[in-house]
Amino acid sequence: MTVLPDVTDTLIQGATVLSMDQENRIIEDGAVLVRGDRILAVGPSSEIGKDFTGKILDAGGCVVMPGLVNAHTHLPMSLFRGLADDLPLMVWLNEHMFPAEAAHIRPETAWLGSLLSCAELLLSGVTCCCDGYFHETDVARAVSESGLRGVLAQGVIDYPAPGVPDPATNVDQALRYVEAWKNRDSRIVPSIFCHSPYTCSADTLKKAKQAARVQGVLFQIHVAETEGEKNMIQCSGGLSPVAYLESLGVLDDKTLLIHAVAVDRHDLEIIQKSKASVVHVPESNMKLASGVSPVPDMLALGIPVALGTDGSASNNDLDMFGEMGSAARLHKVIRKDPTVMDAKTVLRMATCEGARALGLGDVTGSLEPGKKADLIVVDMRKPHLTPMYNPQSHLVYSAKGSDVRDVMVDGRMVVENRRLLTVDLEGVMEQAAAFSRQVNRRPQDFEDLKGDL
Amino acid sequence: MTVLPDVTDTLIQGATVLSMDQENRIIEDGAVLVRGDRILAVGPSSEIGKDFTGKILDAGGCVVMPGLVNAHTHLPMSLFRGLADDLPLMVWLNEHMFPAEAAHIRPETAWLGSLLSCAELLLSGVTCCCDGYFHETDVARAVSESGLRGVLAQGVIDYPAPGVPDPATNVDQALRYVEAWKNRDSRIVPSIFCHSPYTCSADTLKKAKQAARVQGVLFQIHVAETEGEKNMIQCSGGLSPVAYLESLGVLDDKTLLIHAVAVDRHDLEIIQKSKASVVHVPESNMKLASGVSPVPDMLALGIPVALGTDGSASNNDLDMFGEMGSAARLHKVIRKDPTVMDAKTVLRMATCEGARALGLGDVTGSLEPGKKADLIVVDMRKPHLTPMYNPQSHLVYSAKGSDVRDVMVDGRMVVENRRLLTVDLEGVMEQAAAFSRQVNRRPQDFEDLKGDL
Repeated sequence: MTVLPDVTDTLIQGATVLSMDQENRIIEDGAVLVRGDRILAVGPSSEIGKDFTGKILDAGGCVVMPGLVNAHTHLPMSLFRGLADDLPLMVWLNEHMFPAEAAHIRPETAWLGSLLSCAELLLSGVTCCCDGYFHETDVARAVSESGLRGVLAQGVIDYPAPGVPDPATNVDQALRYVEAWKNRDSRIVPSIFCHSPYTCSADTLKKAKQAARVQGVLFQIHVAETEGEKNMIQCSGGLSPVAYLESLGVLDDKTLLIHAVAVDRHDLEIIQKSKASVVHVPESNMKLASGVSPVPDMLALGIPVALGTDGSASNNDLDMFGEMGSAARLHKVIRKDPTVMDAKTVLRMATCEGARALGLGDVTGSLEPGKKADLIVVDMRKPHLTPMYNPQSHLVYSAKGSDVRDVMVDGRMVVENRRLLTVDLEGVMEQAAAFSRQVNRRPQDFEDLKGDL
Repeated sequence: MTVLPDVTDTLIQGATVLSMDQENRIIEDGAVLVRGDRILAVGPSSEIGKDFTGKILDAGGCVVMPGLVNAHTHLPMSLFRGLADDLPLMVWLNEHMFPAEAAHIRPETAWLGSLLSCAELLLSGVTCCCDGYFHETDVARAVSESGLRGVLAQGVIDYPAPGVPDPATNVDQALRYVEAWKNRDSRIVPSIFCHSPYTCSADTLKKAKQAARVQGVLFQIHVAETEGEKNMIQCSGGLSPVAYLESLGVLDDKTLLIHAVAVDRHDLEIIQKSKASVVHVPESNMKLASGVSPVPDMLALGIPVALGTDGSASNNDLDMFGEMGSAARLHKVIRKDPTVMDAKTVLRMATCEGARALGLGDVTGSLEPGKKADLIVVDMRKPHLTPMYNPQSHLVYSAKGSDVRDVMVDGRMVVENRRLLTVDLEGVMEQAAAFSRQVNRRPQDFEDLKGDL
């Protein structure tokens, strides 16, 4: 395990600074002054940090902006990246992912897959993720080690799951996880994640939400991912998945609805009234042919919408730059309107709006004095980013995760000149490759274990 | 101007080799032997090049595959990347692009923008592009200098255009360009590009196709990009754009139809019968809200379909990895079928099928003895590409242009360890930035010149 780099007061200067604050300020030749783990000042290079004597980071030719918020991940699933593709959701889930997870996900592999994901996230400019999985305490260990910030939820499902062989204990285990991580690491915010209304009973959903409420933590759930979901929910009395969740009393301003693809006007009004937030996951929804979430309508109603990649077994990466591009393009062609989901809107979804949806609006997602120093330096001196008329357009339509040069989380430089300082990357990749050889060697594991689920 | 690197006999070994040949062979621990400008052998590392004494390139942990074919570009337009976004096609074209081109595209800027685009293409693994623009002789100069291969077409349009102030001479100028470049550089294949059926008269279209026929070169045209196009064509007698082109006799196996979005079953049958090829341009069609081309239907009819990015003023980059991901995902969600456009199909569109559509099926697009040595080495030892169960899936759903390590075109190594050897990249980017400052300084240019078009 690598030791985290020190927190060092730093003046970043000479950059085009995208604040992502309320006014969406863009400062040419701007500077950001970081003291300890927080932002002290943001403004023109000529005005900021005049008497500063600490570390100076030259960001000429670069954009400095808040680190990206990836609002939906399943970190350990990087270990299954590309294992099964070009398949329908339910086949992919029931015949490939659930069996693979049952056979291969243990505390040490959850940790390994998470560390691999953290490396990918940090190297592509994500400073905060929102995760839901099993063995989440091992996920949290990996996130903590990597230097990333995370809202990390223990999964709840009414089937035997990795680390939760007896579903009757699922909510209790989630509760114990939340209690264990509540005040353990300021970068880790625990949460509870119910898999979906079709894999959790009404009782489980109510019990899990109640536990989240008592603990004051975010309650997350996949909902309305496909048109078919409505018919898969037992005892919903014909209600839509969203209306069903409302009828159970689990929607409020600490509820995060993931996907929300198959939602009608009435569902949107329910979400709006409940003050719940939505995570839009366009690439996974496209690849699994789930459908297209009516995000422009949500935005018009003032529903907070974050952006996420989903786990890398379905997407197949955690790159928020790609996700921003897909979000911006998809709705234009679906709506036949090239003005919807403009670059600014999408960029805010991936930063300040994402943070707000996760309940971290006061902590991260914009460059403002008093907020945590979660920021990235994107090197724009590349042929595919030249010339630059509009930095927002470039970040959404042309930049890649690999253009991120430096990454700071919580005042700590965790990526410097594209080198990840917190993770033994070679070692982790080697272990992940060894894991995949094991998966490939034993296909019968999948067959044998299918009956369990 | 940089001098092109020498052609050196090279043995590339230790890679996962994707041949993209008829059998779609994938060779673990494979090797490619290059002699002069051609591929001599492809097979397992243990069998290929045993007595070889020349340059050996270790590609352990990498994929070696044919260089990508970007079948639709407007190379000089990189200079306008991000200048105008989130706008409808006709507003973008008439109020922004045409005026900007009229004001700023001259021989030297066409060359500069093209060189910038060539740098971007090569660094993201494209070894062959198909271009249509004006001042194409300057585009060809840049492509030739950069080491890229290209099918490069002089544009024809019935309006004053850069370098063609008098539209009456448009076809003659295209003809002179083709004659000049026909036997000048083995990497440059000249072609003629009519802008569209709504900006070229019936006479122009017929005359241009006739010129292309006499010269034996590819005839390219944007067609059926939007639903509205049908109503924009004068004198089509109510025919669809594709049926109109057929009625003019311009469709045959040396015709490349770009976009083909607003096409019905009858149009597809016309295309099939004519043996014309199609270029699919998904990201540009999405961003401009043009619509979705029925590519799976085209493939079912056996129509050759290539993949292209469009110019970087509309996309906004030339990255074929992003384009492959978008193509694979878009049709799944549109068709509600996650099995369409699987990774293998999309990868072949971007390589061997692309080459076939451009009439270069015997030259490039696959790794086969006798073909030109146009190949790329993609470094898969990255967190977002780890572990690797299926290289085809990774290349389409997870890889980025920045994962391309080495690029060989025509037997010449033009990118080595991500360093572009043929272009003074810093100098070109500096000049492009200077160009953009000029564009930004004189907004009246756009207003003044609008009347000309």
